[in-house]
Amino acid sequence: MKVLSGIQPTGRFHWGNYFGAIKQYIELQTAEQAFYFIADLHAMTTIRGEPETLAGFSRDAAIDLLSLGLDPNQAVLFRQSDVPEITELYWALLTITQMHLLDKGHSFKEKKDRGLPADAGLYTYPILQAADILLYDSDTVPVGADQVQHIEITRDLAARFNHIYGETLVLPKAHVVEATGKVVGTDGEKMSKSYGNTIDIFEPTPKKLRKKIMAIKTDSTPVEDPKEPEGDSVFTLYKLFADDQQQAALAERYRAGGMGYGDAKQTLYEAAMDYFGPAFEKRQELEEDLDTVEDVLRAGAEKARAKGAEVLDRVRSAVGFKKRSSAP
Amino acid sequence: MKVLSGIQPTGRFHWGNYFGAIKQYIELQTAEQAFYFIADLHAMTTIRGEPETLAGFSRDAAIDLLSLGLDPNQAVLFRQSDVPEITELYWALLTITQMHLLDKGHSFKEKKDRGLPADAGLYTYPILQAADILLYDSDTVPVGADQVQHIEITRDLAARFNHIYGETLVLPKAHVVEATGKVVGTDGEKMSKSYGNTIDIFEPTPKKLRKKIMAIKTDSTPVEDPKEPEGDSVFTLYKLFADDQQQAALAERYRAGGMGYGDAKQTLYEAAMDYFGPAFEKRQELEEDLDTVEDVLRAGAEKARAKGAEVLDRVRSAVGFKKRSSAP
Repeated sequence: MKVLSGIQPTGRFHWGNYFGAIKQYIELQTAEQAFYFIADLHAMTTIRGEPETLAGFSRDAAIDLLSLGLDPNQAVLFRQSDVPEITELYWALLTITQMHLLDKGHSFKEKKDRGLPADAGLYTYPILQAADILLYDSDTVPVGADQVQHIEITRDLAARFNHIYGETLVLPKAHVVEATGKVVGTDGEKMSKSYGNTIDIFEPTPKKLRKKIMAIKTDSTPVEDPKEPEGDSVFTLYKLFADDQQQAALAERYRAGGMGYGDAKQTLYEAAMDYFGPAFEKRQELEEDLDTVEDVLRAGAEKARAKGAEVLDRVRSAVGFKKRSSAP
Repeated sequence: MKVLSGIQPTGRFHWGNYFGAIKQYIELQTAEQAFYFIADLHAMTTIRGEPETLAGFSRDAAIDLLSLGLDPNQAVLFRQSDVPEITELYWALLTITQMHLLDKGHSFKEKKDRGLPADAGLYTYPILQAADILLYDSDTVPVGADQVQHIEITRDLAARFNHIYGETLVLPKAHVVEATGKVVGTDGEKMSKSYGNTIDIFEPTPKKLRKKIMAIKTDSTPVEDPKEPEGDSVFTLYKLFADDQQQAALAERYRAGGMGYGDAKQTLYEAAMDYFGPAFEKRQELEEDLDTVEDVLRAGAEKARAKGAEVLDRVRSAVGFKKRSSAP
């Protein structure tokens, strides 16, 4: 199995990112080939003219992933922008992309429908995603259910390329991951950056994490009354961290009455601290040892480029270009 | 002056290509920086699944240019596909390209208006052209009058990039070249591949060249009658090769009567052979010494990449990426 996953460097990850995707992605790192990249070329469509921000977000994404269990001895972690082969394949794919394929693209359509100025980068975004996948012969791409369309586009493009140029590219499959549980935000809605209701995995300090948790919206049942755990945001989030027994114990305290939501929140806080504690520590270590992070990314990029150059050489030969390996 | 010119590898060049563009382009090779590239990435939008054809056309274009006087000691000649930096800059430019800029593009509009399937490569073609120009800090781009729009697009993009990211890219100027004279085809219309009325610079044999010239359409004035040289295709073409004195001499023979068009064609044939004779010989030499051609292209690509990497590093720093020079 050759796994590929790209992660957008959009600042700190929140619980929704983790339980909805990152956790499942990292679990695939034991595959024969597991490539994880920080999608900083994609990020150019949103972060512009702020070099420190983009560079910082990319580094933070790498640190976050390494802290959360991505093991550079198993997986290959790299920055997309460190693999120039990607844009070469991107151009090759663009030359065979029919326009109607792009007009359907989710991100572009959404932005256009909202009346926002959409640029050619966003418009051709699905093709860069396809290049990301196809450059490494990836056969398995873990995605959320809403991302399956992108993998379909990639398959279509690869098939079209192979039809025109002969068997060259590997057709990937989407591997739809299920969220571990329901991740609600502090307002009870789905946790999402655009709703401003997120709790970050790595809040700057435990105190800030506690404050966020304490601000989760609950109903106004008085302390002494029994409470229904199911449907309550605090309990819903607690389930992400607790085993069945722990869940049952907290549910009992809810139903018994006499426990305020403050107590439930404290329990959630402690569970989250336990769960992410080792990652917090690892993160602190890495923050103080950025050279190691750079070394990991550099070694990752070298491995990615080696594989990418191999696939690109197949593409170049099919097109009629010199192989990169023999080019200047 | 930093000159850049790209030449499409579309098979053999004809007289119209030469007197309309190539001649003038080559004359600019004495500039401080003179970069000439074979646009094989662009050619991918038309030559697909025929690797030998594309590779052959590219090599032929290089041989033709070298035969026609492009001096690798003065100019840098390279294949576009040998400079991967180009597609990196292309992506960077795409992320700031507003869609309305592309909808106006000549080639795309023309193809679409003719009801032909237009792909994303053709659609974003002006951006690849912009990257070609901007990657080498080119300030002067020789073009025909109909190509000025593309340089305007390039200037717009460079200005927009600089506005967003700070002063990074050099704004180029179009250098409009005038055709040496009127180049009519064998049917009296403008010489153009799409009209099937071309005479190639390097027809396979002198005999074939002669045959083409003998087939030029003329009127049916009898041999013995006086003829008007102005407006006659044979005479019009002869002017491309002859000095004023020679032109006057042939004009006199036209007007005196007693000379058939066959004689005029023979005169044109001899003039063309004289004019392109040295290039013919040079071409034959190079055909038998393809290693030299490859060496020239390789050395050219190395110089182009060195300059391109310098400019791309400015772009990468502005965006927030590692400099390529320090990347893996």
